[in-house]
Amino acid sequence: METLPAAYTALVERLKELAVLRSCASLLSWDEQTHLPPHGAEHRANQLSLLAGLCHDRATDPAIGDLLAQLDDVQALGGHAAPVAANVREARRNYERSTRLPRRLVEELSRVCTLSQQAWVEARHESNFAKFQPWLTQMIDLKREEADALGSSTGVRYDALLDDYEPGATVAQIQGAFSPLRETLVELVSAIRSSGVQPDISILERHYPTDRQKSLSLDAARMIGFDFQAGRLDIAAHPFCSSIGPGDCRMTTRYNEYHFSGSLFGTLHESGHGIYEQGLSTADFGLGTGEACSLGIHESQSRMWENLVGRSLAFWEFFYPQTQSAFPDALGNVSLQQFHQVINDVRPSWIRVEADEVTYNLHIMLRFEIEQALISGALSVADVPGAWNDAFSRYFGMTPPNDALGCLQDVHWGAGLIGYFPTYSLGNMYASQFFEKANADLGDLNEQFRRGEFHPLREWLKTNIHSHGKRYHAPQLVEVVTGQPLSSEPLLRHLRGKFGQLYRL
Amino acid sequence: METLPAAYTALVERLKELAVLRSCASLLSWDEQTHLPPHGAEHRANQLSLLAGLCHDRATDPAIGDLLAQLDDVQALGGHAAPVAANVREARRNYERSTRLPRRLVEELSRVCTLSQQAWVEARHESNFAKFQPWLTQMIDLKREEADALGSSTGVRYDALLDDYEPGATVAQIQGAFSPLRETLVELVSAIRSSGVQPDISILERHYPTDRQKSLSLDAARMIGFDFQAGRLDIAAHPFCSSIGPGDCRMTTRYNEYHFSGSLFGTLHESGHGIYEQGLSTADFGLGTGEACSLGIHESQSRMWENLVGRSLAFWEFFYPQTQSAFPDALGNVSLQQFHQVINDVRPSWIRVEADEVTYNLHIMLRFEIEQALISGALSVADVPGAWNDAFSRYFGMTPPNDALGCLQDVHWGAGLIGYFPTYSLGNMYASQFFEKANADLGDLNEQFRRGEFHPLREWLKTNIHSHGKRYHAPQLVEVVTGQPLSSEPLLRHLRGKFGQLYRL
Repeated sequence: METLPAAYTALVERLKELAVLRSCASLLSWDEQTHLPPHGAEHRANQLSLLAGLCHDRATDPAIGDLLAQLDDVQALGGHAAPVAANVREARRNYERSTRLPRRLVEELSRVCTLSQQAWVEARHESNFAKFQPWLTQMIDLKREEADALGSSTGVRYDALLDDYEPGATVAQIQGAFSPLRETLVELVSAIRSSGVQPDISILERHYPTDRQKSLSLDAARMIGFDFQAGRLDIAAHPFCSSIGPGDCRMTTRYNEYHFSGSLFGTLHESGHGIYEQGLSTADFGLGTGEACSLGIHESQSRMWENLVGRSLAFWEFFYPQTQSAFPDALGNVSLQQFHQVINDVRPSWIRVEADEVTYNLHIMLRFEIEQALISGALSVADVPGAWNDAFSRYFGMTPPNDALGCLQDVHWGAGLIGYFPTYSLGNMYASQFFEKANADLGDLNEQFRRGEFHPLREWLKTNIHSHGKRYHAPQLVEVVTGQPLSSEPLLRHLRGKFGQLYRL
Repeated sequence: METLPAAYTALVERLKELAVLRSCASLLSWDEQTHLPPHGAEHRANQLSLLAGLCHDRATDPAIGDLLAQLDDVQALGGHAAPVAANVREARRNYERSTRLPRRLVEELSRVCTLSQQAWVEARHESNFAKFQPWLTQMIDLKREEADALGSSTGVRYDALLDDYEPGATVAQIQGAFSPLRETLVELVSAIRSSGVQPDISILERHYPTDRQKSLSLDAARMIGFDFQAGRLDIAAHPFCSSIGPGDCRMTTRYNEYHFSGSLFGTLHESGHGIYEQGLSTADFGLGTGEACSLGIHESQSRMWENLVGRSLAFWEFFYPQTQSAFPDALGNVSLQQFHQVINDVRPSWIRVEADEVTYNLHIMLRFEIEQALISGALSVADVPGAWNDAFSRYFGMTPPNDALGCLQDVHWGAGLIGYFPTYSLGNMYASQFFEKANADLGDLNEQFRRGEFHPLREWLKTNIHSHGKRYHAPQLVEVVTGQPLSSEPLLRHLRGKFGQLYRL
């Protein structure tokens, strides 16, 4: 093997140190959500702000620019395996994005972000959009400014924001995938509603003691392959998964003793994220090849384990006996088929985070539509509630009774996360597309799940997706893995097949 | 109020930022002891090492030296309250200590420290001093070098090391306090052993369910004044208390369902540390006046709540009914007097951390004697086991059966903590001296404890000790608070009084 250029070695050292520093902030953030005593909040904000400043200084250090300039000619790295070139590409991408944003804008965004989220909490609580409107207006202005500072090769302003979460993706590409999806989903929901099948969902609201939910969640996570020698499961108000660094991945969930689904499916979802993080190359920590590909690919892993595996009949053929004996009072008289039907109940609802597999993507498309219009300038912030309700009625045939159940429900816009929503649906599409390919490569996965065998799928994901890190951007990765560009067809086949059967369509 | 010099304001800003950065490492260390998954250990070491380097760079930044030079004339700060002068004094002390140590020595100490602790773990496990000897030899050489680099105003090498833990204390002063203590303690132990009183200590080894121990520990900590809005109690193998920053103080304990005392007295002990940290000025975080005075003063707070309060009859007159009803099987037939007798059982034992109030200080004096001789050169490392056993027999009239129960039992020497042990006994002496003064100021404390009133003592400690931070060094503080220099008399009066009664001497 040819020797790597000295500039590359120096770059790697800086990137790894930066990643270690960032990972300190990750632990502080995890602790903030899981253990921080109330009076410690102000000090925690000071700690995180100091670390963010140190990381920003290092990320924009001109010395990185100099090293990158010496590595300008990626061809000069041609003698090395492609990962080296990918690492330089990602380092350049991050450096350019960081240095393009004026410090004033970064500070202003951070300030408005904090205040705007506080305003949002109140506004949602009172279902009073007027309280949020001035903050959302400022936020949209700042995000437009950010997009213009970042620039985009397509000339589409929204693409510059999207690129932060889903490198290489564009509005045009996503719209191409969403269009056929939307129409079919609306039809499918309508067919389900008129099927006459009405599962008794109160089964899931019986009494499920918390300690047994906890032990079942741990069993399920372990069973599908989350490694607890290299991670944990704790409790948080808003479940998430955060990788601190090699060998240390932290998931959270929440328990409600009168709601079965939250903790178990939440844990399967976060385990999907966690297994992805645990599948990344630890040797490449801090480099592009040791980092998750995109939010959409991340979500494909969580959705796959939660829905394609965790809500399948095959999974429960294996796992239901154990579940039933953990909750004899609640599930003793519930058959496997009944249980499988209720955990797959489909019905239009106001709140995205509680939506089922079929309606979920409609919630996303609605947000994608509105945030694009906000960023392009076609929609003014004052008109958001009206636009939301119109779109909701188009998608779901019903109008939210108030803004708390409508345009005020999500934290994202107030937190400046614009361009983030579409990655949820991309995740659903990637998940089905990967899953079809895994099925083709590994034989009948359901047959394996019925026997409690999840490691073949997990290993396939590790080899084909996790181990690449950011070597490919998501649009390329899906082609490398499945031989096809992103398509909504696999997701539609899955939904039509599964719900056609469950609802006898 | 006169305006503070610009150099002081600039210094304060740097010190506070340094403290925030250090506090990030504190949280990472707390998490390492309480939550870190096994495979995350290497990454955690990388994180802590990076932060340590960043902190060292900032602590030794010549800009701090320049600011201190501008503040050279403490008289120039005469117009301000004394705390300003104390903060400059402490900043200078820290800067000088940090810059006097050559980087090579700091790195070598850190490296040997890690390896030496690993060797110690094995050596203790096998009770094989030979395995530890080469590492202890290196460590003693490095600590002698460190002491010489730091220098000491007394010319006594050991004083330079002691000064790190107990600023302003000296061997001469500690020996003056220890001498009368030693003799009387040896006599007291002997009188207790021949008293014929033999409490049935198996009472404490009955079954005490963990969840009830936990809830009792939380109640006790809350009752004496630890604020859980600004802190936590978690589980760790080796209990400790770590203050992360204003509003965030973390204590740990451990539960053994067949050992009552560990968790409850451990929690009272750590609560003493925690209440001290919670009593420091949050506005002065990062400055001398917002920082604990010394390890000895810290230990005075933990020992006071654990022993002078927590093992008093008055405390249990209030708390025993609740404890008895938490453990009806174990304590239902045990009277208050019996219980009070067994939690105050005195008997010579091999292991310091399990020792009672009376013998504990003898364990410390033995270590103080040996580590002084090691640092002065009067004792060679090879002769440590022999010297230990001789001293043990002098103090306790018995000889340890092996080195694991003798000179290999403590982590301190392998970890480079030399000059640390005497602060434990200083803490016991300070505690009794402060407690006598609090009694004189507040009226009969026992009367208050009997009624469950602990806040007068807590407030007295906050006003007289906590709120000063490092404004005074410990030898001055004890004089300011009690009007007397450090003395072993109050401790001896306490021990003679309490154990004279319990053992009918």
